Amino acid sequence: MIQIFVTGGTFDKEYNYITGELFFKDTHLKEMFERGRCTLDIDIKTLMMVDSLEMTAEDRDIVVHNCKKAKYDHILITHGTDRIVETASVRAKAKIDKTIVLTGAMIPHAFGISSDGFFNLGSALAFVQTLPHGVFIAMNGRYFDWDKVKKNRKTGYFEVKM
Amino acid sequence: MIQIFVTGGTFDKEYNYITGELFFKDTHLKEMFERGRCTLDIDIKTLMMVDSLEMTAEDRDIVVHNCKKAKYDHILITHGTDRIVETASVRAKAKIDKTIVLTGAMIPHAFGISSDGFFNLGSALAFVQTLPHGVFIAMNGRYFDWDKVKKNRKTGYFEVKM
Amino acid sequence: MIQIFVTGGTFDKEYNYITGELFFKDTHLKEMFERGRCTLDIDIKTLMMVDSLEMTAEDRDIVVHNCKKAKYDHILITHGTDRIVETASVRAKAKIDKTIVLTGAMIPHAFGISSDGFFNLGSALAFVQTLPHGVFIAMNGRYFDWDKVKKNRKTGYFEVKM
Amino acid sequence: MIQIFVTGGTFDKEYNYITGELFFKDTHLKEMFERGRCTLDIDIKTLMMVDSLEMTAEDRDIVVHNCKKAKYDHILITHGTDRIVETASVRAKAKIDKTIVLTGAMIPHAFGISSDGFFNLGSALAFVQTLPHGVFIAMNGRYFDWDKVKKNRKTGYFEVKM
Repeated sequence: MIQIFVTGGTFDKEYNYITGELFFKDTHLKEMFERGRCTLDIDIKTLMMVDSLEMTAEDRDIVVHNCKKAKYDHILITHGTDRIVETASVRAKAKIDKTIVLTGAMIPHAFGISSDGFFNLGSALAFVQTLPHGVFIAMNGRYFDWDKVKKNRKTGYFEVKM
Repeated sequence: MIQIFVTGGTFDKEYNYITGELFFKDTHLKEMFERGRCTLDIDIKTLMMVDSLEMTAEDRDIVVHNCKKAKYDHILITHGTDRIVETASVRAKAKIDKTIVLTGAMIPHAFGISSDGFFNLGSALAFVQTLPHGVFIAMNGRYFDWDKVKKNRKTGYFEVKM
Repeated sequence: MIQIFVTGGTFDKEYNYITGELFFKDTHLKEMFERGRCTLDIDIKTLMMVDSLEMTAEDRDIVVHNCKKAKYDHILITHGTDRIVETASVRAKAKIDKTIVLTGAMIPHAFGISSDGFFNLGSALAFVQTLPHGVFIAMNGRYFDWDKVKKNRKTGYFEVKM
Repeated sequence: MIQIFVTGGTFDKEYNYITGELFFKDTHLKEMFERGRCTLDIDIKTLMMVDSLEMTAEDRDIVVHNCKKAKYDHILITHGTDRIVETASVRAKAKIDKTIVLTGAMIPHAFGISSDGFFNLGSALAFVQTLPHGVFIAMNGRYFDWDKVKKNRKTGYFEVKM
């Protein structure tokens, strides 16, 4: 059984055609797992729908709290990519003895086939089943240890940080 | 470095709008890894473009031969789902000391967002990085040992075979 | 008020991921008009869901009968492209004093952004509002008089027939 | 022969995955006509790539100037929807004796199948072939006289203005 926590991020953003801005409505996770024809036992819970740039310390506490009390050892979290490393760090310092994988997207899933979200979700789901206990970020087809990664803000790619 | 071998399958089928039939042109793998913003070192090689129902013993030999001589320990193979278990079995019996993950799709990638291919590719790529040496099938968000899986031809889902 | 008659054709075909064949389920017309943000008064009626190659004389009679008894002067018909000219001809000979526009698609709408269906639907809807009484085929961004058009079976394009 | 003028608007916007903002790169018009399998003689010319909210009087002069000197009687213009009525009005007052149809989109074409752009383009192309000389706006499956239409900014739909 795998626990999925939704926190928002570009992954789940929608285009508001009246204002021309991006916003959150409902998560696409359920529909994405169905389209991926996923047969794993998963439990999807939306903790919040926020842009990670606007995520507060309280929001991070909520995520840590939910990771701690989750009944399952395998936790996948969707998250905005701008602060995903910070959130991973908070989670790691909470020393939760589970496999926690955070993933995100650079292009909203709602923007169709140009989005990287569906690919990232597939890889994160595989990593959460196979990696040991610890906190990891899954992006760009790879996984990174929470304390050895940074987002390159010019290219949008995640890189190993020495 | 990860070796990708393309053998065709539904994954890479196209719609011929003149005849109304499905056919093979070029693989979509390169474009898919780009869209997934993959930064792993991968080497994509097309071995054949066939429907797995039409795959011959010679075709399977070609795949085994290429797995053996591949310079890398991590091999991901795209394959038609109808005979993916048979091919995995031939490969396993060849006792190649590498991690080999086969994946496919139920709906062609060319059919847009309804396809499961992009999700499967993400998960297979993650599994091939994290699983031990052996032969595995990645479908439905899961991995299966080559000798403990069958495709349910009524539902199209892969199931554990006792 | 515009009358829409659905007869099937490639337009509305779906991919059966179990058999790998194309089949008909429900029409996509309603969803397409919504996505096109259409505010015209339209009435969508599914007369049949058939491949035009399998359309019988009885099927054509049903279409003619429905065109005759339709309360509105503007009728748009979705149709398989292989026999669209023949059906247009039967309709024209029935001398119905209305504007009747037939359209189709070379690639199913269900195959996502590669399909020409959504473009064809937009153009056919515009033609049916602006052309005089008569029977027309709308394909390739153009309209053709029913008796001056043929489908080029090699290219899939519609051409003026002298 | 049909003259296409591109001015930008939501139609041609792209998502910048680094900043999360929308921006302009190249027009999608050529690719859209190909996908629509359009066989009309068309000439596509990009006049500018701007959000219509930022369109200046000089920009509008450029559009009018190009409409006047265009060699063809049928002109289709893609335009941001927020100021499409104002631009149509400027054009109409220039008393150009041609058929000019302006169209736009509420959702960028780059956002895939959720966009209304492909449908709007098909309908605008049909209207420009069949309407008499004058200036028209094609949106929501309909055409409107330039001086009898307004955009409802709450719903995003175009409505007849008395």
